[in-house]
Amino acid sequence: MRIAIAGYGNLGRGVEAAVTNAPDMELVGIFTRRDPSTVSVATDTPVLAWNDMASYADKIDVVVICGGSATDLPTQTPELAKLFCVVDSFDTHANIPDHFANVDAAARAAGNLGVISCGWDPGLFSLARLYASAALPQGADYTFWGRGVSQGHSDAIRRIPGVADARQYTVPVPEAVKAARSGDNPELTTRQKHTRECFVVAEEGADLAAIEKAIVTMPNYFADYDTTVTFISQEELDANHKGLPHGGTVIRSGRTGLDSEFCNTVEFSLNLDSNPYFTGSVLTSVARAAFRMHEEGKVGAYTMFDIPPALLSPLSAEELRAHLM
Amino acid sequence: MRIAIAGYGNLGRGVEAAVTNAPDMELVGIFTRRDPSTVSVATDTPVLAWNDMASYADKIDVVVICGGSATDLPTQTPELAKLFCVVDSFDTHANIPDHFANVDAAARAAGNLGVISCGWDPGLFSLARLYASAALPQGADYTFWGRGVSQGHSDAIRRIPGVADARQYTVPVPEAVKAARSGDNPELTTRQKHTRECFVVAEEGADLAAIEKAIVTMPNYFADYDTTVTFISQEELDANHKGLPHGGTVIRSGRTGLDSEFCNTVEFSLNLDSNPYFTGSVLTSVARAAFRMHEEGKVGAYTMFDIPPALLSPLSAEELRAHLM
Repeated sequence: MRIAIAGYGNLGRGVEAAVTNAPDMELVGIFTRRDPSTVSVATDTPVLAWNDMASYADKIDVVVICGGSATDLPTQTPELAKLFCVVDSFDTHANIPDHFANVDAAARAAGNLGVISCGWDPGLFSLARLYASAALPQGADYTFWGRGVSQGHSDAIRRIPGVADARQYTVPVPEAVKAARSGDNPELTTRQKHTRECFVVAEEGADLAAIEKAIVTMPNYFADYDTTVTFISQEELDANHKGLPHGGTVIRSGRTGLDSEFCNTVEFSLNLDSNPYFTGSVLTSVARAAFRMHEEGKVGAYTMFDIPPALLSPLSAEELRAHLM
Repeated sequence: MRIAIAGYGNLGRGVEAAVTNAPDMELVGIFTRRDPSTVSVATDTPVLAWNDMASYADKIDVVVICGGSATDLPTQTPELAKLFCVVDSFDTHANIPDHFANVDAAARAAGNLGVISCGWDPGLFSLARLYASAALPQGADYTFWGRGVSQGHSDAIRRIPGVADARQYTVPVPEAVKAARSGDNPELTTRQKHTRECFVVAEEGADLAAIEKAIVTMPNYFADYDTTVTFISQEELDANHKGLPHGGTVIRSGRTGLDSEFCNTVEFSLNLDSNPYFTGSVLTSVARAAFRMHEEGKVGAYTMFDIPPALLSPLSAEELRAHLM
């Protein structure tokens, strides 16, 4: 199957690696909104101009869109779904229903198929919540993120006057994880579940106290958390905080038995050296499923909830039953 | 949807509880090969004679078959698939391809649908292996079972002369679990991965040394493991070992990046107070999916690998996208 990438940031690089390593895929091109001659990519894949995309409609089976959820994907995914089958990683949970409707209308009108909100959260974590709640309808689930770098929160710190660079780690509170596993289905507040650790490089002469206050009181991002701010040098940030590790855990505990007499816990966790490369690898497996579902005649919008899992794998149904079942 | 249970042992009781608690299901009957008048069930569900099943073909949407994998399911599932849509928990991994073919032929000829090998292993653990290997094609996976009661191994001990009762626990070796998580993809032998703990009630005057030797040298069941045998009284067994807890962990570690430079670990684990009640709850969610897939016109044999996960849930696609994605 012929795959293209639209947008070449960290996630695009992750998809580039995964598609290149996939035995059943060819990476046809990487589309960029920048001048293609200025973009150097990790493989010998052609770098192509975003505005030329329409002329590739017959040369590409699936486009993996690697834009950001805030401003790129809400317009890019419906637009590109008019031309191609598409996969994206739209992760603004509250807006998923609207995004789904927009992509569904565009893809359906063009006879294409789009799978939105793929990756690990939303994505594999959503699947863990779904399978666990189907098996344990009576119960509660808990999602913990980290320890890992939140790029959105790091960006938010970098926008504060006087900040030269920053990295923010989201860290689950061990006592909260333990409580979630206990089967007691505790109510846990935002503050009880995660702490936030910020490593900040200040500009020379900046007011450190003002920066710290701006961080810990920032609404939505930090005000509801116990946040620590540590000022470090650019050298230390570059040496110790350049990676993008992440991960987390979904825990559902629930009861079975006629009188709810049995307690059960289902847990799914990820520990990732590189968030964008893992996410890119998941998107690549979804591109495979999108291609297969479209071959079966399906059109419109889907999520990973709608994908028969066998379609994600390069192995045949027979191989899967014989070796992974 | 109208559900029936075929076979009323521990698993049948688990399905009975889960279907009774499901908002969208009606439990029409429990079929038994015994004299129905001698079988008392936990709910007010009618107990019906196995041989009358054919007359219920129009009154039941899905039959959940709760027989054993050794001798029941290989014949029961294909037979019943001629009359009904069916779900089973066939768990003899090596024979899954043959069983699939037999159920497929029978179900397809009758226009029915059968989902085989549902539960947690095979079942949710198989799905964990599949999703993890699709996301991390370059890697290795490890399945650990326990700490939990293996009913097959307990039965094998009970068949030894001089044994009155027994319970066998399968226990993962902590060092092996740690090695699997490390990302080094170690080769682990059967002996390195699990130990087996046997609690045995001997008949009066039995030769304890002979029993112990018969256990620890038993081929397939114990010879390849480090096995401990503890003789206890029937009272102690009844007091401390009557439950059927189980669980386990699937771990896949694998690499991403163009040069495999990033290490990642995916882990899925279960901790179950009651193995049959949890398995019964999973089978119940699969019965829901089987009904829906058959409504869509699908016939033949399937596994959980082929089921779009959304179909397992009583929630609508819109609710799932809004709340679980």
